[in-house]
Amino acid sequence: MKIAILGHGVVGSGVRQIIEAKKKEEIEIISILVKDQNEVNDERFTTDAQDILNNPEIETVIECMGGDEPAHSYVKTALEKGKNVISANKKMLSNRLDLFETAEKNNVKLLIEASCGGGIPWLINLRRIRRNDDIKEISGILNGTTNYLLSRLFSEDISFEEALKNAQKLGYAERDPSDDICGYDVRYKLDLSIYEAFDLLVDNKEIPTYGISAINDKDIAYAKKNGCTIKLVARASYENDKLNAIVMPVMLKKDTVFANISSNYNIVECVSDYLGKADFIGQGAGSFPTGHAIVQDLIDLCEGKTEDTKHKAVKKNVDNDFDGIFYIRHNKTDVFEEYTDERIAEDSFITCKCAFRNIERLFKENEDEKMFIMEVEG
Amino acid sequence: MKIAILGHGVVGSGVRQIIEAKKKEEIEIISILVKDQNEVNDERFTTDAQDILNNPEIETVIECMGGDEPAHSYVKTALEKGKNVISANKKMLSNRLDLFETAEKNNVKLLIEASCGGGIPWLINLRRIRRNDDIKEISGILNGTTNYLLSRLFSEDISFEEALKNAQKLGYAERDPSDDICGYDVRYKLDLSIYEAFDLLVDNKEIPTYGISAINDKDIAYAKKNGCTIKLVARASYENDKLNAIVMPVMLKKDTVFANISSNYNIVECVSDYLGKADFIGQGAGSFPTGHAIVQDLIDLCEGKTEDTKHKAVKKNVDNDFDGIFYIRHNKTDVFEEYTDERIAEDSFITCKCAFRNIERLFKENEDEKMFIMEVEG
Repeated sequence: MKIAILGHGVVGSGVRQIIEAKKKEEIEIISILVKDQNEVNDERFTTDAQDILNNPEIETVIECMGGDEPAHSYVKTALEKGKNVISANKKMLSNRLDLFETAEKNNVKLLIEASCGGGIPWLINLRRIRRNDDIKEISGILNGTTNYLLSRLFSEDISFEEALKNAQKLGYAERDPSDDICGYDVRYKLDLSIYEAFDLLVDNKEIPTYGISAINDKDIAYAKKNGCTIKLVARASYENDKLNAIVMPVMLKKDTVFANISSNYNIVECVSDYLGKADFIGQGAGSFPTGHAIVQDLIDLCEGKTEDTKHKAVKKNVDNDFDGIFYIRHNKTDVFEEYTDERIAEDSFITCKCAFRNIERLFKENEDEKMFIMEVEG
Repeated sequence: MKIAILGHGVVGSGVRQIIEAKKKEEIEIISILVKDQNEVNDERFTTDAQDILNNPEIETVIECMGGDEPAHSYVKTALEKGKNVISANKKMLSNRLDLFETAEKNNVKLLIEASCGGGIPWLINLRRIRRNDDIKEISGILNGTTNYLLSRLFSEDISFEEALKNAQKLGYAERDPSDDICGYDVRYKLDLSIYEAFDLLVDNKEIPTYGISAINDKDIAYAKKNGCTIKLVARASYENDKLNAIVMPVMLKKDTVFANISSNYNIVECVSDYLGKADFIGQGAGSFPTGHAIVQDLIDLCEGKTEDTKHKAVKKNVDNDFDGIFYIRHNKTDVFEEYTDERIAEDSFITCKCAFRNIERLFKENEDEKMFIMEVEG
């Protein structure tokens, strides 16, 4: 199979190295799109995407550019020109779910294994499990940056701001960390996992997303006092045509598997009727883990092992008709009185088991951008 | 695909129910072998295996009988008659590795996904990871009975004998529990995982296997004092043509993922060059989880998604050239003096980091059937 790689950064170069090292004879890299003319030190390198998109020889395009445009246009054009596309670009993919339709219409594949959970063979296992089972729930810790920050907050006596600065210095957090710490990165991954697990196309902005940017030492102290830790968790369930989906910090007992997922690892869990609970753990990012997942998609294409049946994905709204127990820190605790079960301090309390919807409504009516919420696991 | 099921117990009936519930049109159950004439209440049921083995219409046989004979003869005959076989019978398969050769010779598949880790998609993921990566190490907690017993010993003040009796009452342990508590069940699973991960055929009797039958309250107390728990772990590594393989209790820090795998769950881990560390957790046994794994193999057959390339498995001896730190309780501690780093009591000690081979040799020269050994994780 003749392929091209769009982008030769961390992921793109990882993909190239794995293909070259494993000497997969059936795969030939024809062209690689690089940013600058001075990077062109290999006859396959080009700075002009049209060289790739207009080359009818190229059967499959691997998009490792990141960002929305021009990645989106390149992917769309490639699909329309009858090329398969493999992409790890969760933000772009989740914001552009219509690309899956474009792929179907043009009778080519859009494969996205590396977009959720990096190297973890997650989406492929979801698709396999679905062949003879009904998936009811998926959940996971899907962001390395927040997992690293939370680990440090629990092991050292430092503030969130200090931990974040440190992470930025070490390259574990972006200069603009909001996609990670506000939970948006996880939301994209949850959205794509929902597509693969349930065949549902969900506008990611509908998924309530609470990050960890406002976490403080009192929240940490409360969790510690209760023998718990905090992780940023993505969750979705789908039964009787009701979809619940949320990204929220969760307070977890220390002796659970989720509580013990260390900094740079991700975990994803799938609950289905026959198989029951199955968990998958691995590195959520990095040149080689992500590259490995992309090359897996590529080998599936070469071996004709991708799904035969077309996805019959349908558009769906988030219902979020579920109850929970929540720890809330907010500047107006009084408005939550009806749901308050235990007062922790002037500004924080635990709700009784209540509908998430009610809490969400009160948040909207009473804004507090420094508020922190986490679910308390039963 | 026309199939037959040998055995209609816990696993066999699970397989039948999943196939029927999922209404897989491409799969037709022609015949099911049952034990007694009085079970024959369905026209597909038979008590005569020859009805199945001699029926040229049947393309695939699912062996869910357990035990060595007649399961082994039936599987061999089915393969020789050009039928694919799917089996979850780890003990029989590990003791009869030549069946893989029989399958190859007859140009049919012998698929064994359900034999290791029950419902966990483990062997399929090993085979997929291998397509573009080199696996270096595999390990796992692969026995629910011992995991249950160890959990109880750590959470309650009871003896091993009490815990075992209780487990037998609840059906979590067999009447003859030796395959589980002596580690043999895990040894079979490790042996089959080695075959899938490294293409090596290893006589399972060569894998040093230490169980938990001699564990006592002092061993538990020592682990607790050190903030640890104990799990029965299978491990193998293969690099530079050296194979290490062992089944042994391991003392693990409480904040590790392995330490937090609860009773009825199994975990398996794979370490490879590009993907790094990947873990898979799920139910290790049970009618539906195991049935699910068997039906996955069946769907792969139907969809032509089994491995195209023939396994080039070769025979291999276990080298076990590795160092470790070990906790040992033995009636002759003096003979280990050279390796003793810390004396815990009259009858127990910790070795300095030493070659496992030396310890093994001393065990052989100084028999003590009530001795207990566990590796102490760095």
